[in-house]
Amino acid sequence: MSSLDTLVESLRRLPGVGAKSASRMAFHLLQHDREGAQLLARALQAAAQQIRHCERCNTFTESPLCSLCADPRRDAGKLCVVETPADQAALERTGAFRGYYFVLMGKLSPLDGIGPREIGMHQLMARALDGQVSEVILATNFTAEGEATAHVIGEVLRARGLTVTRLARGVPAGSELEYVDLGTIAHALVDRR
Amino acid sequence: MSSLDTLVESLRRLPGVGAKSASRMAFHLLQHDREGAQLLARALQAAAQQIRHCERCNTFTESPLCSLCADPRRDAGKLCVVETPADQAALERTGAFRGYYFVLMGKLSPLDGIGPREIGMHQLMARALDGQVSEVILATNFTAEGEATAHVIGEVLRARGLTVTRLARGVPAGSELEYVDLGTIAHALVDRR
Repeated sequence: MSSLDTLVESLRRLPGVGAKSASRMAFHLLQHDREGAQLLARALQAAAQQIRHCERCNTFTESPLCSLCADPRRDAGKLCVVETPADQAALERTGAFRGYYFVLMGKLSPLDGIGPREIGMHQLMARALDGQVSEVILATNFTAEGEATAHVIGEVLRARGLTVTRLARGVPAGSELEYVDLGTIAHALVDRR
Repeated sequence: MSSLDTLVESLRRLPGVGAKSASRMAFHLLQHDREGAQLLARALQAAAQQIRHCERCNTFTESPLCSLCADPRRDAGKLCVVETPADQAALERTGAFRGYYFVLMGKLSPLDGIGPREIGMHQLMARALDGQVSEVILATNFTAEGEATAHVIGEVLRARGLTVTRLARGVPAGSELEYVDLGTIAHALVDRR
């Protein structure tokens, strides 16, 4: 196989990249951005070698503890469970949460062979039962799989006597009721305050 | 900058990849496919080091001549000019052309600073005027830029006495006139045979 074919095949392993996109990417890098190709090669190698999982919250980090878990000024009584580092970043941007996180790095998806073990259930249990955490806030996505994940984690942690809450469902800020889907309005009614 | 941020930034240099896609790609590689990350890193380095341009047709190759230019059984009297290796591959799949190619590796685009020099006009002239080529077939795309490119190349080569032809425009095979756009039908009328 030529090194061009090998490059196209390797690019196809990226999520959302098919044969045509991979060819276009290879062409672009070789014709217009060889420096970018070298940069990407080095970045991939460095990341694959240096990035591991935070011992406490399971997110990506280059040290044993991620910078957030290493910050002693946060509220040790609250633990927020999210699916991915991107979800964690979205919550952090709000500035409304001062506790710690646990990042599942996925969601329950039995059909894909992703069970409680794969999403670090055991590690989450140990983290939530460290004696300091008083409330676990489930912030998995409001998709079918995210809801199932929240349900399973909630059941397990409640059985151990922890307070478990879920992000509120309701009408998004700035939206007009006329254009909000029925399921969301129904949830907002049930969860009214 | 952390090696994760560096990776995301490097992935964003790929065409069609924005901030969200780059994050998703980095997450996927680190969480689910570290082997793919290493493969891609090696493929990028090998390609950037080994791939150069064919001395005759300007396409990507790892030897001085690409395999097609090195094939002596093709018709040396016909030279087909295309924009990219992907276009060349599409023509080759038809099996309808037995001559040689010249790959511009781009198209004229004055607004982007891509003039005759950048698309290898000088090299194309030398190739077309080697004494063996009797007909140059312009197979650039039927877009505004592709048409302009074909026009400019055609003018220059005709001035040197070469026969220059253009791929026929017309109704695509298998299509019903009712659903074909007006411009295409007009061209098919004008170019009727």
